Amino acid sequence: MTVGSALTDALAAWRETLGADAVSCDAQVIQGVNVATFQTTARAAAVLRPSTHEDVQQCVRLANRFRIPLYPISTGKNWGYGSRVPVRDAVLLDLGRLNRITDFNEELAYVTLEPGVTQRQLYDFLQAKDSRLWMDATGSSPDCSVVGNTLERGFGHTPMGDHCSHACGFRVVLPTGDAIETGFGRFPGAISGPLSRWGLGPALDGLFSQSNLGIVTKMTVWLMPAPESVEAFVFQADKPVGPIVDALRPLRMNGLLRGVMHIGNDYKVISGSGQYPWEATAGKTPLLPKTMATLRRELRIAQWSGSGALYGTRGQVKEAKAALGRALRGHVDRVQFFDERRLNLFRRIERPYRSITGRRDLSRALQLVPQLLDVLQGKPTAGFLGSAYWRKKTPVPAAPDPDADRCGLLWCSPVAPNTGKDVTLVTDLAIEMALSYGFEPIISVSLLTERMTISTIALTYDREVAGEDARAMDCYRALTDRLLERGYPPYRLNVASMDYANGAGAYGTVVQAIRTALDPNGTVAPGRYDGR
Amino acid sequence: MTVGSALTDALAAWRETLGADAVSCDAQVIQGVNVATFQTTARAAAVLRPSTHEDVQQCVRLANRFRIPLYPISTGKNWGYGSRVPVRDAVLLDLGRLNRITDFNEELAYVTLEPGVTQRQLYDFLQAKDSRLWMDATGSSPDCSVVGNTLERGFGHTPMGDHCSHACGFRVVLPTGDAIETGFGRFPGAISGPLSRWGLGPALDGLFSQSNLGIVTKMTVWLMPAPESVEAFVFQADKPVGPIVDALRPLRMNGLLRGVMHIGNDYKVISGSGQYPWEATAGKTPLLPKTMATLRRELRIAQWSGSGALYGTRGQVKEAKAALGRALRGHVDRVQFFDERRLNLFRRIERPYRSITGRRDLSRALQLVPQLLDVLQGKPTAGFLGSAYWRKKTPVPAAPDPDADRCGLLWCSPVAPNTGKDVTLVTDLAIEMALSYGFEPIISVSLLTERMTISTIALTYDREVAGEDARAMDCYRALTDRLLERGYPPYRLNVASMDYANGAGAYGTVVQAIRTALDPNGTVAPGRYDGR
Repeated sequence: MTVGSALTDALAAWRETLGADAVSCDAQVIQGVNVATFQTTARAAAVLRPSTHEDVQQCVRLANRFRIPLYPISTGKNWGYGSRVPVRDAVLLDLGRLNRITDFNEELAYVTLEPGVTQRQLYDFLQAKDSRLWMDATGSSPDCSVVGNTLERGFGHTPMGDHCSHACGFRVVLPTGDAIETGFGRFPGAISGPLSRWGLGPALDGLFSQSNLGIVTKMTVWLMPAPESVEAFVFQADKPVGPIVDALRPLRMNGLLRGVMHIGNDYKVISGSGQYPWEATAGKTPLLPKTMATLRRELRIAQWSGSGALYGTRGQVKEAKAALGRALRGHVDRVQFFDERRLNLFRRIERPYRSITGRRDLSRALQLVPQLLDVLQGKPTAGFLGSAYWRKKTPVPAAPDPDADRCGLLWCSPVAPNTGKDVTLVTDLAIEMALSYGFEPIISVSLLTERMTISTIALTYDREVAGEDARAMDCYRALTDRLLERGYPPYRLNVASMDYANGAGAYGTVVQAIRTALDPNGTVAPGRYDGR
Repeated sequence: MTVGSALTDALAAWRETLGADAVSCDAQVIQGVNVATFQTTARAAAVLRPSTHEDVQQCVRLANRFRIPLYPISTGKNWGYGSRVPVRDAVLLDLGRLNRITDFNEELAYVTLEPGVTQRQLYDFLQAKDSRLWMDATGSSPDCSVVGNTLERGFGHTPMGDHCSHACGFRVVLPTGDAIETGFGRFPGAISGPLSRWGLGPALDGLFSQSNLGIVTKMTVWLMPAPESVEAFVFQADKPVGPIVDALRPLRMNGLLRGVMHIGNDYKVISGSGQYPWEATAGKTPLLPKTMATLRRELRIAQWSGSGALYGTRGQVKEAKAALGRALRGHVDRVQFFDERRLNLFRRIERPYRSITGRRDLSRALQLVPQLLDVLQGKPTAGFLGSAYWRKKTPVPAAPDPDADRCGLLWCSPVAPNTGKDVTLVTDLAIEMALSYGFEPIISVSLLTERMTISTIALTYDREVAGEDARAMDCYRALTDRLLERGYPPYRLNVASMDYANGAGAYGTVVQAIRTALDPNGTVAPGRYDGR
């Protein structure tokens, strides 16, 4: 998009509608929003900050009139997938000021919120209400948007961890500026709008996640009643990951394990609990398996570390604990449980504990425990954010800003069946290819549902190092290609790689036909997951 | 649709493609398929019976060429909603011959099947495989299509009772004749196709349930591992239903009750376990509350009867049983549990038990127990089908055929929040209105999910009685209107009432725009849930 007269006219119209303070072309602002954690080429030319649903409708109508594409973001914390950077040149539609919680129901366990509501805000809201309900938190920043993460099909840790499966009733601004509600909410006065995904007739809400078919300005997120009992666990294994996955699947299938378990490799633990060992590697990258093996012993990191929690009544948790112990026997080297008493203790002494475990002679895996315990109970934490600084030579700042600090981060996130064989194939391939491109294979395997896993493979680097941006993207593409060949497509894409969403043949034609029907001018987020 | 030359030409072309035996214009066949359990006006002019997915594509392509609309049915057992009768004049596309089970995975607990596969066929398949997996069965006939019920958002009894929430990977013949797979299955070789609902980019599967946007020729249905333990329960209450709903909700929310519970009123039990008491009413209809009260005492029917099951490990079931007992105390008069030993006993002696309980001095509610125990364990049963003959003066035939036997049946099925207040409002309104139109208020409240209920209100009558067809439809519409006014829209519609799917304003415009984009000639099931 060239800054032509159409843009000038559009900006004037938006200023008139939204007020001057809600439209920014300030060079510093523009420069800031156009930086992600990897190289991007499309640029935002301006930023609009509407405050209401109706304002969003006006923004979209004017964008249509002046034929200026808009790129909506919620809070713009989509690190590793593109942050706030558009897929193609556009004006940024920052929904951060739509930050109202518009409905809350303790009895039926839901909350309705706008895209600017952050994880922290929702958590604080529930605390202030003295609610017995838990949200599900991702391991990303407390400043992330709940709606944004759900629409990108992000996930967390509790039984509500598959976010998109526990959300409904989207209010959507269409690319024409009109608005609809999905599900039963479209019927005037229908009180089941926040309670059911389906509605009557074709279900439309699926169209608006990972999509450019509309702008969601409100959604309902289901919450879970705090269980009577919760017991977290971590385990370590210097053994293959495959048999662990196979051992856990039956417990997930039969409902003994209701939450989302995560299994990280040694690189995941070391990068999550400290920065790159420049000393031990004499400044060389990548951290080779041989050096990693030495560090594993030194830092007491296992090859694989897992975490999860048992939720339920006291009886259920007790039984699940015994079953989990039996299932893991022989497949892991150590399991530790954190019951409520120990959980509370950890929460109270989090700070001193951190300083204690900072000592190198303690297990590094255990350093991650406090933040793990938080997310396992639906509490957002900033504790995992530092890992973006893994390859930086400067320490993690007090207020991390991975974009501005030029942290390099690309997530490659393949979907695989929940079997040991598949997880082994995916992780073996990721380890081999990341290292061959000069990156550490930083892997977390999330046992997201009974039947499928998502492995998130972080390519973490320093954008200040010449050539690394290109090499990381090359690695990302080569790895994604290989995974696709093997039958493991990505669950989510970064803004520079939307071509993987291309539907070959009839599938692409359908998505494109719907796109053309709903957005004839190509106003909303052109290129974003749009099947072309 | 007039039987014009286009139809003649199309029939010739279909005959050439499918073979003559797969195309029928036989007057008796046509007459048969055009009968539902209520009055309909649209007619099928011919029946196509393709055997393969590719045949379906050919049928659709030819339909486009000759501009003849097609109306797909799976097995045509959509009793109470329209059976096989189209919404508007069309040629019937009977998918009954697509009856293959194409994939099955014991480890990952799923089965992939075509629309002609019946509940019985799937059940027998699992038995023959000696599978540890359970399907979820509806209370309708064993000859019902699994795919058809899922696409209509039907439901059953087990933890997989919300069928559409446990299905994915649709293969769809589009109205153009092209085909797509939803979810990850669109990527060549992607092995997670049967394992995840989402896929990459906008999720399309929601578009193809309760819809005319495509013809699903295959889908994956998730199964559940047989639990270590199962304990069924029935309860009776001569007390209001509201407090029962409120007492059960917390147990559903916290996962102690994982299945779908159903609560029926006295009319539901009496109509499910015998025919209309012509004697006690001196031949008059409806069965008034005063007479019903007498019969209740006589037949030992409570005002409300509930059923459900506890699934899990032995420990979980034991704990859930205690919690259920505590929750229901004071709200119901009697709870009976059927543990595995008693369940097996029932199964073995089902026939003698039936003859025993046929004696009028035994509780009529208990007569329904054997078939309840079946469906609570995922076994299809024909035991509920006789209720369509409630108002008939002839006995239920050995092979019930409600359409041909001119049974009158219309389901009115509002969605409401899972609260006592809402269920009370819905059931009170249904009782008042059904009686005022001369019908018995035959109500079953299904606690479908943690947050919402569906009440199925059966208007059951004898189509041979003059005027009853019209009166039943008047009652259906008046009741649906009143429920909508109060905020309780239907979850599903009959073929004569698709106008309720009309989306006013932007919603209808969106559905219509998608419809026009995907089906420019209006080839697939015109009028069906199509938002116009």
